[in-house]
Amino acid sequence: MKSISGGVTAPRGFRAAGFAAHIKLKSTKKDCALVVSDSAASVAGMFTTNIFKAPPVMWTEQMCQRGASRGVFINSGNANACTGEEGLADVAETARLAALAIGATAEGIGVLSTGVIGVRLPMARIQAGVEACAAALSVPGGKDAAEAIMTTDTVPKEIAIEISLGNGTVRLGAMAKGSGMICPNMATMICVITTDAAVEPAALSMALRGAVGMSINRICVDNDMSTSDCVLCLANGASGLPALEPGTEAFAAFQQALNQLCQDMAKALVRDGEGATKLVEIRVSGAASDEDASRIARAVGQSQLCKTAFYGEDPNWGRIACAAGYAGVAFEPSALSIWLDEVQVAQAGRPTAYEEEAAAAVMKQREFAIRLTVGGGSGESVFWTSDLSVDYVHINADYRS
Amino acid sequence: MKSISGGVTAPRGFRAAGFAAHIKLKSTKKDCALVVSDSAASVAGMFTTNIFKAPPVMWTEQMCQRGASRGVFINSGNANACTGEEGLADVAETARLAALAIGATAEGIGVLSTGVIGVRLPMARIQAGVEACAAALSVPGGKDAAEAIMTTDTVPKEIAIEISLGNGTVRLGAMAKGSGMICPNMATMICVITTDAAVEPAALSMALRGAVGMSINRICVDNDMSTSDCVLCLANGASGLPALEPGTEAFAAFQQALNQLCQDMAKALVRDGEGATKLVEIRVSGAASDEDASRIARAVGQSQLCKTAFYGEDPNWGRIACAAGYAGVAFEPSALSIWLDEVQVAQAGRPTAYEEEAAAAVMKQREFAIRLTVGGGSGESVFWTSDLSVDYVHINADYRS
Repeated sequence: MKSISGGVTAPRGFRAAGFAAHIKLKSTKKDCALVVSDSAASVAGMFTTNIFKAPPVMWTEQMCQRGASRGVFINSGNANACTGEEGLADVAETARLAALAIGATAEGIGVLSTGVIGVRLPMARIQAGVEACAAALSVPGGKDAAEAIMTTDTVPKEIAIEISLGNGTVRLGAMAKGSGMICPNMATMICVITTDAAVEPAALSMALRGAVGMSINRICVDNDMSTSDCVLCLANGASGLPALEPGTEAFAAFQQALNQLCQDMAKALVRDGEGATKLVEIRVSGAASDEDASRIARAVGQSQLCKTAFYGEDPNWGRIACAAGYAGVAFEPSALSIWLDEVQVAQAGRPTAYEEEAAAAVMKQREFAIRLTVGGGSGESVFWTSDLSVDYVHINADYRS
Repeated sequence: MKSISGGVTAPRGFRAAGFAAHIKLKSTKKDCALVVSDSAASVAGMFTTNIFKAPPVMWTEQMCQRGASRGVFINSGNANACTGEEGLADVAETARLAALAIGATAEGIGVLSTGVIGVRLPMARIQAGVEACAAALSVPGGKDAAEAIMTTDTVPKEIAIEISLGNGTVRLGAMAKGSGMICPNMATMICVITTDAAVEPAALSMALRGAVGMSINRICVDNDMSTSDCVLCLANGASGLPALEPGTEAFAAFQQALNQLCQDMAKALVRDGEGATKLVEIRVSGAASDEDASRIARAVGQSQLCKTAFYGEDPNWGRIACAAGYAGVAFEPSALSIWLDEVQVAQAGRPTAYEEEAAAAVMKQREFAIRLTVGGGSGESVFWTSDLSVDYVHINADYRS
């Protein structure tokens, strides 16, 4: 497995483009993206569980149920959420326009939107965006697409991986946006993954669920789950290798690469979290079950007080113990030990005689790990979170203005 | 029912005091409080459900199980939490010292501590605090006690109410501290309620649970539940009226007064929340059950994005809808309507043609209400929350320094 340059167009047979269509009138940044597979691709997706699923999410979910896609159009600046029947009609029209432009059927075009909630899409500008993107599709255009989907992100997020199988290579690529409203079970997060592997839709869906479950669903910037989040994965088979069958070694290698891709992307999302100055990995072990470990890791990762302490670079392990204690998991308080990287700050539920300076030095890093053991069980889990900074508040207090 | 001046010493037969014992060495604020009933009182309490229950909480919970108390000693500056066996021994010693000073038994003295976690109590200074408080007990001392329990609170919080029953009057008084780590199921919050009504422990416990369940357990500043939170209620019968029996009109009047006292205190806690500039009331109706309504109200009240929008005075109703949508409650998105005070911003799951200025004007107030209806059910609930401000982050990033 090796990292390669690029993102969604790193796998063979994909082209992409980005265009500034002024979806938000005052904005001049690229805000429309199109990712297209040259041939029909298998598709799988994972979507927000929010009751207020945005119309584009509903549309794209239906496409995933059919399992086939030629590509996806994404706009930032407007989420087309809480827009009712008109919102759904706007999605269908967007898909129709994109299908027309690339010579496909509307049913095979995914549509995703991110931005302000409750405002209808400016359809004339969407049309301009669709047509400009379709005319500009290219392999280098992957970077433009990654830029176009950004909202409060400060950097475009692209990752690509290549793996060697016995008979050739398979590539996977991804782009993602989303730096606030990020919480387990995804958030205002859009991630498009492409691969030139040939994988049947059902197998692709299974692989995607596995990979997202231990990466993108284990991160937190704030604790809000948006109406728009989605991870979409297209597999077009352009590698030329035979279809990957679950249970084979080749499929396991593909799954491993997909896991790595999703985990790298999850960390990239947290690293670029709104106002984030830290990426903190929380590892819990010794729990009765993985599920228990996961609840504890999540409680710490979502705690507003832990996150402000990370921001303040304050090795306040009491807040970590406190969050573990209200996770809703039964464990012996006297079994808790906590490490900040290699500095043990608590043992048997009590503070150790650690050096305050050593603990503080760990917290001063941009990235560090917190390890908790809570007993002798075999349950373990990992979670990634950002700190909660003054800038986070500024960004979100002033979002619409 | 009428408001009267004072707090825990407004009811007859209670005296209190506060003293600066330098529990945190550098601090010169009052940090020890003692509240004493002149005669044996019934006692009831509600306590944190955090696994890391602090030793004083364990001690005071046991006292409540016995149902009798002469008073409570409270220190701020050190929570005596995550301090193990030594912490428990320190609590017992504190109770012994207080009992000795006022002529009572240690088992009847509650002990509560709030402040830093994981550091042992400075027992010599605690002893000085106990003795100074015992020597200074008085009715005006209620105010000193309310000041002594403050940590990051900016104002002491005292409330008192008097009710007339057929044969006389009953008074209730309260003091509380707690402006961060505040979350449903209480938090780093300490509230002491006194009354000169005569109420048996079991009836008092029932009344307290009812009152706290619809007040103090329905507030949120941040979402962290502390290791130390506690509401304690002492009833000493000094009103001279016969014992209040559940099921009687007099008991109902007492319950109503206790509800009001707890609700007023809950709002006072949020109003003084760390960094808070707003008190926002969230009312949900039309849910299938009160429990469903409560989950929706809580999701909105705890949403970091809603709370930053409140701070930004941004009528971003989409975030409110979004939080309602991930509350884990099934309702028809098209049944959602939202009002900011009297300004309806959403109807049938869609934005109304509201005036942005009118909506913004509501948000500019220090206190306002958000109403949501989610269907035709009879379930309803209310929740109080603060905004999430830049100051909140500053306060909590720098807490220990």
